[in-house]
Amino acid sequence: MRFDVLTLFPEMIEQFSNFSIMKRANENGVFELNVINPRDYTEDKHKKVDDTPYGGGAGMVLMAQPYVDAYESIDAAENTITIMMSPQGEPLTDKIVNELAVFNQIIILCGHYEGYDERIREIIRPREISVGDFVLTGGELPALCLMDAVSRKLDGTLGKIESAEEDSFSNGLLEYPHYTKPREYRGLKVPDVLLNGNHKMIDEFRYQESLRRTKERRPDLYEKFIRNSF
Amino acid sequence: MRFDVLTLFPEMIEQFSNFSIMKRANENGVFELNVINPRDYTEDKHKKVDDTPYGGGAGMVLMAQPYVDAYESIDAAENTITIMMSPQGEPLTDKIVNELAVFNQIIILCGHYEGYDERIREIIRPREISVGDFVLTGGELPALCLMDAVSRKLDGTLGKIESAEEDSFSNGLLEYPHYTKPREYRGLKVPDVLLNGNHKMIDEFRYQESLRRTKERRPDLYEKFIRNSF
Repeated sequence: MRFDVLTLFPEMIEQFSNFSIMKRANENGVFELNVINPRDYTEDKHKKVDDTPYGGGAGMVLMAQPYVDAYESIDAAENTITIMMSPQGEPLTDKIVNELAVFNQIIILCGHYEGYDERIREIIRPREISVGDFVLTGGELPALCLMDAVSRKLDGTLGKIESAEEDSFSNGLLEYPHYTKPREYRGLKVPDVLLNGNHKMIDEFRYQESLRRTKERRPDLYEKFIRNSF
Repeated sequence: MRFDVLTLFPEMIEQFSNFSIMKRANENGVFELNVINPRDYTEDKHKKVDDTPYGGGAGMVLMAQPYVDAYESIDAAENTITIMMSPQGEPLTDKIVNELAVFNQIIILCGHYEGYDERIREIIRPREISVGDFVLTGGELPALCLMDAVSRKLDGTLGKIESAEEDSFSNGLLEYPHYTKPREYRGLKVPDVLLNGNHKMIDEFRYQESLRRTKERRPDLYEKFIRNSF
């Protein structure tokens, strides 16, 4: 998987990709990162990439020219998708992460502080994705979330002892509770069923706990799960 | 606002807080960051912080002792809240960000790779928050998202020319489209109404565009907005 990230803050992306799953994916050769700064593409003599909004109002707006030119400079592979990180996009879900993981290349546009000139959307026509109904200073953290989530799904990133299949959402439910040593900590004991070695009972316990937790915490997911079970 | 972040990867938090809004909040003295590594609190002679799950299964589980002891080492201010970043938590929203911004101190627990021993939840009883229905390698990126979103709401972080009030979600709707110079780019023109200086008409145009965009992209938010309007 190759990621091309358009950002005015390249170090934010570069530094973070040296951590965690992205680092491992990088070392295993399943992950390639290319960071492009639209500031390098501006035709403005003061290297400006933003300007005041037409119609007035607070804040600055990212100009179309540097973003579109930077975008068009990218070597597009076969089987590419372009994503714009935006609070106005569809909320990222595990299902979308799976859809994205089959591409060879993901181009990600990050805004920062401001809005995008609408013509960036009109010309590039990206798929817009949001990480949630809250507002961040820029698209860099959402881009890193997306890259991390997608990287987990690539062959060769998660080791044998880990597994994306047991994660929350992979079966539509939240995860069951986990316990590790010691058997008793501050008077709190590990449930007996996890200690008896009967894997049928353990699976049943975990499934019931997943169901219970999902119903309690996320009735929206629970309803969907039940509906899809028939 | 003081943030205390428990993480096995302190550099991920420290490096990122040198960027963007958190840097500005830091410089303005409205933001204080304290990063705690549970590894420094483990009583295990090999400095282990995780172990295999009781009942079997893939992955490792964060042990209760280092997390609970690290947590209890924190100087709790008055008016503190403790958050656990977890895909099983309630999804972060602008409403929750506003609720969090009134605290003096936010303690954030980040897991990494693995699940938390359930007894960490039982003893600390954190408010659990998720950034969305997808799975990441760790709670560090979600923690940074939360810190960035909260920092934007603190007095002294956003300058006069910016405004959190015009962001998506602050009124329950997605943002209207923005335009900046030039008036025409690749044949695409800025809508005339934004150029005529009639602020009543501009406000009306933007409101209608916000409504239209929300209805089209996020029927769930649109319905809620309409319902709350009566």
